[in-house]
Amino acid sequence: MDTTAGKPIRCRAAIARAAGEPLVIEEITVETPQPHEARIRIICTSLCHSDIVFWKMKDLPSVFPKILGHEAVGVVESVGENVTQVSEGDTVIPVFLADCEECVDCKSKKSNLCSNHPFKVSPWMQRYETSRFKDLKGETVHHFLFISSFSEYTVVDIANLVKVDDPVVPPNRACLLSCGVSTGVGAAWKKAQVEAGSTVAIFGLGSIGLAVAEGARLCGAARIIGVDVNPEKFEVGKKFGVTDFINSKNCGDKPVSQVIIEMTNGGADYCFECVGLASIVHEAYASCRKGWGKTIVLGVDQPTSQLNIRSTEVLNSGKILTGALFGGLNAKSDIPILLKRYKDKELQLDEFVTHEVRFEDINKAFDLLIEGKSLRCVIWMNK
Amino acid sequence: MDTTAGKPIRCRAAIARAAGEPLVIEEITVETPQPHEARIRIICTSLCHSDIVFWKMKDLPSVFPKILGHEAVGVVESVGENVTQVSEGDTVIPVFLADCEECVDCKSKKSNLCSNHPFKVSPWMQRYETSRFKDLKGETVHHFLFISSFSEYTVVDIANLVKVDDPVVPPNRACLLSCGVSTGVGAAWKKAQVEAGSTVAIFGLGSIGLAVAEGARLCGAARIIGVDVNPEKFEVGKKFGVTDFINSKNCGDKPVSQVIIEMTNGGADYCFECVGLASIVHEAYASCRKGWGKTIVLGVDQPTSQLNIRSTEVLNSGKILTGALFGGLNAKSDIPILLKRYKDKELQLDEFVTHEVRFEDINKAFDLLIEGKSLRCVIWMNK
Repeated sequence: MDTTAGKPIRCRAAIARAAGEPLVIEEITVETPQPHEARIRIICTSLCHSDIVFWKMKDLPSVFPKILGHEAVGVVESVGENVTQVSEGDTVIPVFLADCEECVDCKSKKSNLCSNHPFKVSPWMQRYETSRFKDLKGETVHHFLFISSFSEYTVVDIANLVKVDDPVVPPNRACLLSCGVSTGVGAAWKKAQVEAGSTVAIFGLGSIGLAVAEGARLCGAARIIGVDVNPEKFEVGKKFGVTDFINSKNCGDKPVSQVIIEMTNGGADYCFECVGLASIVHEAYASCRKGWGKTIVLGVDQPTSQLNIRSTEVLNSGKILTGALFGGLNAKSDIPILLKRYKDKELQLDEFVTHEVRFEDINKAFDLLIEGKSLRCVIWMNK
Repeated sequence: MDTTAGKPIRCRAAIARAAGEPLVIEEITVETPQPHEARIRIICTSLCHSDIVFWKMKDLPSVFPKILGHEAVGVVESVGENVTQVSEGDTVIPVFLADCEECVDCKSKKSNLCSNHPFKVSPWMQRYETSRFKDLKGETVHHFLFISSFSEYTVVDIANLVKVDDPVVPPNRACLLSCGVSTGVGAAWKKAQVEAGSTVAIFGLGSIGLAVAEGARLCGAARIIGVDVNPEKFEVGKKFGVTDFINSKNCGDKPVSQVIIEMTNGGADYCFECVGLASIVHEAYASCRKGWGKTIVLGVDQPTSQLNIRSTEVLNSGKILTGALFGGLNAKSDIPILLKRYKDKELQLDEFVTHEVRFEDINKAFDLLIEGKSLRCVIWMNK
């Protein structure tokens, strides 16, 4: 078999050509990896809500045409210069948030916001303002979140690649740790540091919210209150430790925060906003316990959206407001811990996968998530 | 000598009869303490900025006539029923924030916001909606912050009294721990938990800000940046560990946050807002380090004042926003620790006392603080 290293690869990719229009599977050319990059053969990828957000978004930072997808698992096909951390044949999980392992943030247990490669929504590679994708007309196709996993092959910076030493975890489980599940579990475990016996409220029971529940359950939370407008989410939530459910549509004139304050005799110890709306951040903040309550923002809101909080409330309540990208996890050190916890049958991943489709049916994955029918739909590249 | 217990006491008090008008020293009647209350002979009191705020404030929650003052030290004259914690002759420090020692907050190291006696700006006693003060016409004179120390005698709830077992600390030092210095030191030590070697920025170098510096110095902060519009504050600040000074008037078009980010290569680990203006909270938040930076609000802003923070900034920066009343200290357990640290010559208190006046000259204390000439002016009741 001829090696593909050192040459462009022609393969199939699902291209988003215009906002909100179905992806089109086309042949593209994937260039060779530049220094500090690796070319990856994607095994499977799953659809995350952020893909939908940037698929619908017409204006900057959204740029078309592009290849979406950022939750995946793959195998290294070839590497560029100065790559020592991974080599051909390694199983890898790509992560949108870089972990250079060298800067003060990546070395710190208190931050995961790499200073060498700051997070941004860029249409290019991590280290160069260039693309590795061209369509058959020779025109540039843009990257997304430094991953672009809706392609049989992609190129990813080594700062965004986690090597999976032990490929025992099936790819349709491992890919979940690439973004959503890690974000939720990490937010409870690492950013909020949920204490055993505590009370948690989760606003929005999509995959991120359910993963927060799973993380809180693993931390030993005594009570996990789920808030959603869809009553079916309670049954789903129970699998991940949700003990109480509030249908925010059924609270009448009473704000959800008032319901939670009454249920918990003063407010939840930790509130997680997993929707991405300022009004829900306000409700989460109002729901958390004076003195030590923490509100953690995880939902991606519009760039211009503002929180309005009374200054005296911040002073008098002593509450904590914070947020986390990727749940505060340092990808290269923390994903292996989560993989181990899955293998040890502590962390639940299977329950997140509600659907699996072939690559040709990728638009069906979009429909399922938009209609609220799926948690995670795994897309197999070659099945 | 006849005992005064069980009878009303006639004594002198400085009454605020109308917003912004000089206090008037009048004879008043101080009723006997009710259950859970003690009547206190004030030895000395000092003027805190909050006294000025509520002296100037015309509308609710400000009520006139009232007796201001909430930083003091005194001796128990008599006690009401159900009082076992203090008795006649005990030296006590009154504190506006209750510490009942029984509720989950007062027992917790994570909160100091007593659930049995929530903080509010009330014109009455802590446990009863009544006053213990009458003027010579028999008309009610109101309380302030449950203390009203600008009177030779006052009545205070036992939840608001800290017994000082070892009265070795002079009263004109002990009184500082009643509010301002404890608030600043506590905010650094207990609420922010400033780590050794870290960088701290303090917005506003009044007594609270300087006490934050003192607390940060005790915690081993490597760099303490003071921000003020008064350049004289730098020399004062040096005594309390301030290593760098920014005159926010001299930054030109550059926001102070930009100056701090450049000085610290990314932002301060801890930012303390000690002014009470939303715009300065914004600047403090912008000045703190991504990933782990904490902004702690200590300044008392107008009740309607709103913070406006972009939701995506909370998510993407991972920064922490919080606030603290009384620096997060549990009065009854933490004030004795601060007293001991003063006796052990670790905590500096002497340097805060810039002026001392007789009770008759109490309005001079107001002038000095308003003109920015004093840090703490101690008012002696009988000297």
